[in-house]
Amino acid sequence: MKNKARFNGKAANGRLKRKHVTSYDVAAAAGVSQSAVSRVFSERGYASQAMRARVHEAAQKLGFKPNAIARSLITRRSQIIAVVIADLQYSFYLSILHRLCHELRSGGYQALLFSVPSSEDIDDFMPDVIAYQVDGVILASSRLASRSARLCRDAGVPVVLINRYLSDTAFSAISADNLYAGRLAADFLLAGGHERLAFISGLEDTSTSADRERGFFERVKHLGGRRPLRRKGNFTYDGGSAAALDLMRLDRRPDAIFCASDIMAMGAMDAIRYETGLRVPEDVSIVGFNDAAEAAWKGFELTTITSSAEEMSRRAVGMLEELMEDPERSPTREFIKGRLVIRKSARLPADTALFSADPYALESIPE
Amino acid sequence: MKNKARFNGKAANGRLKRKHVTSYDVAAAAGVSQSAVSRVFSERGYASQAMRARVHEAAQKLGFKPNAIARSLITRRSQIIAVVIADLQYSFYLSILHRLCHELRSGGYQALLFSVPSSEDIDDFMPDVIAYQVDGVILASSRLASRSARLCRDAGVPVVLINRYLSDTAFSAISADNLYAGRLAADFLLAGGHERLAFISGLEDTSTSADRERGFFERVKHLGGRRPLRRKGNFTYDGGSAAALDLMRLDRRPDAIFCASDIMAMGAMDAIRYETGLRVPEDVSIVGFNDAAEAAWKGFELTTITSSAEEMSRRAVGMLEELMEDPERSPTREFIKGRLVIRKSARLPADTALFSADPYALESIPE
Repeated sequence: MKNKARFNGKAANGRLKRKHVTSYDVAAAAGVSQSAVSRVFSERGYASQAMRARVHEAAQKLGFKPNAIARSLITRRSQIIAVVIADLQYSFYLSILHRLCHELRSGGYQALLFSVPSSEDIDDFMPDVIAYQVDGVILASSRLASRSARLCRDAGVPVVLINRYLSDTAFSAISADNLYAGRLAADFLLAGGHERLAFISGLEDTSTSADRERGFFERVKHLGGRRPLRRKGNFTYDGGSAAALDLMRLDRRPDAIFCASDIMAMGAMDAIRYETGLRVPEDVSIVGFNDAAEAAWKGFELTTITSSAEEMSRRAVGMLEELMEDPERSPTREFIKGRLVIRKSARLPADTALFSADPYALESIPE
Repeated sequence: MKNKARFNGKAANGRLKRKHVTSYDVAAAAGVSQSAVSRVFSERGYASQAMRARVHEAAQKLGFKPNAIARSLITRRSQIIAVVIADLQYSFYLSILHRLCHELRSGGYQALLFSVPSSEDIDDFMPDVIAYQVDGVILASSRLASRSARLCRDAGVPVVLINRYLSDTAFSAISADNLYAGRLAADFLLAGGHERLAFISGLEDTSTSADRERGFFERVKHLGGRRPLRRKGNFTYDGGSAAALDLMRLDRRPDAIFCASDIMAMGAMDAIRYETGLRVPEDVSIVGFNDAAEAAWKGFELTTITSSAEEMSRRAVGMLEELMEDPERSPTREFIKGRLVIRKSARLPADTALFSADPYALESIPE
C-alpha cells in the first residue's frame, strides 16, 4: 500500500504526525470557534486583526496546515491553473513559463504543468487536464490546439491561448502580432537596400511562423520587391544552419535573411561565418525574432524583433482572471506589436530612427 | 462570485453542462452498477473487458469526466507531485523540468510546478506546497533548502532532492558528482600541459559550484600544481565574461580556465576572443560544465563535462516512487559521474583516449 505512513497517524519515530492537527485543535488552542478558524484560512467572511493573529499563532504552534484540496471542494475553487505547454524544449517557452508562474503566484494561483512532448498530440492531453478540476487553463503552444480549446469550453473551464490564436473567435488569446513582425522585417531590410531576400521558416504547422512569413511576403510584394526565397528551419539551430547553407550555395544568393526565430538566425550566422567564409552583415544580413538572451551575446549581436514574452504572460493571466470572474464575458484577442532591436547582424538603412521608434509607425505607411 | 458558470449547471448557451454528468448517469446508460463505473475509472477492483468497453462508451457519449480531485480524497492519493524549482531562468533547470515532466507522466503523475524567484527564499514556499496534499516533492535547487526538506519530512511527504544533497543524510538526493567533475577538469587541464589554472565559480551559496571548485582545487594540489586563481561568475554569461576579462588583465594571466557552468564558459570565450584579441584555445583553454545545447554550436565547440540531467531526472522520479511505496525505506544518496566531452576550446593532452573513456578511471589514479 502506498503512502502508508501519511495516513496511519504515526510517523516512523512514533511522534503523532503534524498533519492530523485539525481546525478544531487550532480553534481550541486559540480560544475561538472552528468557523472562525475557517474564516481566517479561507479568507472569506469577517475576522478581526486580533483574531487572525491569534489563529495564525496557534496554527503555527500546532503545525496546522489547511488542506488545499479539501478547501477546494468547499469553495469549488482549486486555485490551480493548468499550464499546458507543447515544446518545452524551446527556451522561448521557458521564458513564458517562468513568467507565467510568477504572474499566477502573484494572483494566488498555482501552476499545474502539462508538458506535451513533440511526439504527442496536445489534444490527447486535455481530458487529463480537465479531470484535475482546475480553475482555468492556459494553452501555450504554437501548434494547433483547436480541439483542446473546445474540450475546455465544453467542460466549462475558462481557457486562454498564449502565443497563438484560433480562427474560431470564441476563444480568448494573446499573441505577438506576427503579421506585423513580418512586415517590419520586410520594411527594415528593403530600407537597408537589400534586393534578394529570403525567409527561414519554423515548424510548418505553427501559426507563429506562418504569420511572420505572410507579413514578410505580403509586405515585400506591396513595396514592389522581388518575391523572397524560402527554406525550412524547424525552429532549431541545426535547421537554421542547413537552410542558410543551402541558400548560400545558390548562384544568386540572398543578401538578407529573415528567420522566424533567433535560434535559427544564430544557426544561420554560425553556418555562414564558419562554413562559407562570407561575412555577416557585409555579405548577408540576418534578422531574427524573439530577442532571446543569446541574441545579445558578443558572437551574435543579432538584430531581432521582441516577442513580448513578459507582456504576453501578464496579459494571459489577466485575461484568464477576467474570464473566471465573469464566464459570460466575450472572448478577447490581443496582439502585441514587437519592437525592432537593432544590433549588428544586418546592414542599416539610412534612417534607423524610424525603425527603432517604439512603436514603429508601420501602419502609417500606405499598405 | 468567481467561476459561476462552472457550478450553476447551465452554460451560457443554455445547454446542460457536461461536467454535471455523474457516475450514476453513466451507470444507468451502461446498464451497470455505479460501483462498477467506479471500478472501471479508478482501475481498482475487477471489471471485465466487456464491462469496461460498455462503461467507456457510455461515459464518452455523456461526456463524463471522472473528477481527479474527488478521486484523490477516496484513494488518499492526488497523483500530483510538487516540483519546486529555484532559478527556472537557467536553461539547465529547463532541461531538468522537461525531463521530470516526461518521467512523472510516464509514472502516471502530474507536476504541480512551483517556480521560486531568485528574490525569494525557497523555504518560504514549502507550507504552500505541502498544503496541496501532493503525493511527493521533488526539490530542484542548487541553493540551500534544508528547512524545506525538513518541512516535508515533518508533514510525512516523501521528498527527493535533485542537483543537490544535504549534509543531513536523512534525505534522498540525486546529484551530479561535482567533486569528481572538478577533479576530472584538473586532470585534463594539467595533462594538457597547462600551468596557470583558474576557476570561475557560480552562485556563491550553491553546493554544485562549491563542490566543483573543491574537487578542482584539491586535485590540482594533489598533483603538485600551482593553486588556481578564482573569480566569481554567478552562473551568468555576463558574469563569465567579466571574470575572464579580469583574469586576462593579470600580468601572469591563466593559460586555462575551468568554469562551473557552460554559460559562464561561453561568456568567457566571447569576452576573450572579441575583447582581448587572445585566442581560444591557443592562448587560453576553456572547460565548462553541463554540456548545454549551445556548447556544440560552431562558435563555441566547448569542451565540457556532462551534467547527466536526463539520468538525474529519471532517478529522482524512481527514488520518489520507492519512498512513496515504502516510507520506512532508508534515504539514499546517489552521485552521477559526468563524462568529458572533448571539443575544441581546450588544448589536448597527449593521451585523449584516457579522458574520453566512459567512465573516466579517475579513481584508479592515486589520490
